[in-house]
Amino acid sequence: MPIVTLTTDFGYRDGYVGAMKGVVLSLAPTATLVDVTHGVPPQDVAAGAVALAQAAALFPAGTIHVAVVDPGVGGARADLLVESGGQLFIGPDNGVLSLATRPDRRIFRVEAPAFRREPVSPTFHGRDVFAPTAGRLAAGARADEAGPAIGEMVELGRPAISRHGAHVEGRVIHVDAFGNLITSLGAEHVAPDAAIEVEGAGGVYHPVLARTFSDVATGALVAYLGSGGQLEIARRNGSASAYVGADRGAIVRVEVAT
Amino acid sequence: MPIVTLTTDFGYRDGYVGAMKGVVLSLAPTATLVDVTHGVPPQDVAAGAVALAQAAALFPAGTIHVAVVDPGVGGARADLLVESGGQLFIGPDNGVLSLATRPDRRIFRVEAPAFRREPVSPTFHGRDVFAPTAGRLAAGARADEAGPAIGEMVELGRPAISRHGAHVEGRVIHVDAFGNLITSLGAEHVAPDAAIEVEGAGGVYHPVLARTFSDVATGALVAYLGSGGQLEIARRNGSASAYVGADRGAIVRVEVAT
Amino acid sequence: MPIVTLTTDFGYRDGYVGAMKGVVLSLAPTATLVDVTHGVPPQDVAAGAVALAQAAALFPAGTIHVAVVDPGVGGARADLLVESGGQLFIGPDNGVLSLATRPDRRIFRVEAPAFRREPVSPTFHGRDVFAPTAGRLAAGARADEAGPAIGEMVELGRPAISRHGAHVEGRVIHVDAFGNLITSLGAEHVAPDAAIEVEGAGGVYHPVLARTFSDVATGALVAYLGSGGQLEIARRNGSASAYVGADRGAIVRVEVAT
Repeated sequence: MPIVTLTTDFGYRDGYVGAMKGVVLSLAPTATLVDVTHGVPPQDVAAGAVALAQAAALFPAGTIHVAVVDPGVGGARADLLVESGGQLFIGPDNGVLSLATRPDRRIFRVEAPAFRREPVSPTFHGRDVFAPTAGRLAAGARADEAGPAIGEMVELGRPAISRHGAHVEGRVIHVDAFGNLITSLGAEHVAPDAAIEVEGAGGVYHPVLARTFSDVATGALVAYLGSGGQLEIARRNGSASAYVGADRGAIVRVEVAT
Repeated sequence: MPIVTLTTDFGYRDGYVGAMKGVVLSLAPTATLVDVTHGVPPQDVAAGAVALAQAAALFPAGTIHVAVVDPGVGGARADLLVESGGQLFIGPDNGVLSLATRPDRRIFRVEAPAFRREPVSPTFHGRDVFAPTAGRLAAGARADEAGPAIGEMVELGRPAISRHGAHVEGRVIHVDAFGNLITSLGAEHVAPDAAIEVEGAGGVYHPVLARTFSDVATGALVAYLGSGGQLEIARRNGSASAYVGADRGAIVRVEVAT
Repeated sequence: MPIVTLTTDFGYRDGYVGAMKGVVLSLAPTATLVDVTHGVPPQDVAAGAVALAQAAALFPAGTIHVAVVDPGVGGARADLLVESGGQLFIGPDNGVLSLATRPDRRIFRVEAPAFRREPVSPTFHGRDVFAPTAGRLAAGARADEAGPAIGEMVELGRPAISRHGAHVEGRVIHVDAFGNLITSLGAEHVAPDAAIEVEGAGGVYHPVLARTFSDVATGALVAYLGSGGQLEIARRNGSASAYVGADRGAIVRVEVAT
């Protein structure tokens, strides 16, 4: 029973996600369909890439991941199938697959007629290209049957990490549904007694570095090494994003231990 | 492994959807459950009918679709099971099944005790009638065991399409989660060089007729033949509904080619 | 094919739920994963407990339920596995499992290394403790292999029901996604001709006691014995919570039949 996961920005009001599932199950009736999320903010490729990366590594080898956040659908961008780390990734060539896949990946353009549902709607490749590709692969097709191998794909830029005197400076790269701020900084930047600051709309805030939320009082800001290995900033039982007035791109500083 | 899909307005805070799934799996442990959506706006039968119709046709023959948008639950309306196009549809007789099923359908009232979970709650037929019906069918029961065949069911009215001089006039019939406006007009009304207009709260807007979103600049309005075959109006990387101030029922005009 | 259900407050923007699903399927590839909901309001343990209780009883014996609403993650509270009514329940010891399980339950602390994914993130036991526990159990492990049996777990307080002269007074214990008010009062408190009142922000309201929504006019308030056996108050085709200005904790009175 091959596993097919779905990550989209299609939301939760329409039948678009259902249409994709129907296409997959028509081609691969025994596939196990798994919703990662369909609540990626509309057209937010970076948020979709983060959601996929948070989930994909936990799935077994052979899993087929479909990610559709696709503002350029029907235009010049390619439809991709990527083999990486023993898993398969399907989606538009706009960076949404770049955080979940590794440098050793093999990249294919999806062009073979058997991997498409004709006539392909220029506004819904999710249903007419990505779902059929997932269905064919789940039914046993090989990745290199989808189309020609290519050498490169669009990569999301990673925010610069820079050193300013006694500080390392990074950025908020994702705000999750709790309002937690996930940063570009990792364990290597954070000494056990480091001082942390984050720039919000109303000024600079100083979360306490700790292990987990409950190490601080309700309503206090806490910084910790998150479940994905990055420095994160949260407000206990609240939203750090709303409290601090910080969104993706906000500046975060760590005082370098000397 | 029979497929059972679920489309409801139950939202995403409660255990109601889970209760329905438990009932189906108790009767048919090997069923493949598929969420279409549970985010239909509360009591919005027309939006539920559109979501179901967008998804249902893509599923294989034998699929069992359950749709519960049911403001009249427990009252006089019938509980229906409809056979159409080789698939089965279950839901209240209020129109929610009418867009996904075809004129050649067979219609049954669900009345047999084996298809109900007694005592049936007068406010939750999803759990006590529709889910048990899906479970029984998934476990091998025949449609005509559910109850008596009947001749008619409630149909959603389709908005009139009218001709006014050099224009064909239709309506917005659905606003999707992106804010795209799906209209009652189809390919037969839209010549390649047609001029499109849509009436919003703040006046009349003129989207450019094109193939897909990326044919216009970010923020511009675009009209195109959508993935369901209808004329749609979108704002690139934004919400046409919010920008134009148009909701379901808004007037859309296409200049007739002469 | 063991069934594993998931109930969380993780929301619908991130990959956290997907990560949990990947862990379960890595350990138990044939498990049937069922989403109950991931839209429990953040950190709202009581709402999560209600959602789980609404759904769990409908599932077959042997079902494994995972519930993660966990503001104290990584702190002193225990990770629990509870056997109750022939089903298994996994989650933090903060009350989220208390409404779905029965007094005859057996309670274990999850401590065995095989039931954890090391290193356990102090902010994501969903992925690193609760999902692995569900996966191990789905793959055939016994509950008593998870760790030591303990005698007690945190119970959510049930709101007092009190008698004041000719009235019985209870509380709103849950507001569902429709805005329906679910109360602590049951059939035993409600005579067929009882008068009901609910205290809202703007005064006291008097819903009509009936069987179901459609027994009253659109926009009217109706009280009825709901699908979970409690007295509920709804507004037909609207939100009683918004209309009355009542949230969890609001006072509800029933005039005692004499």
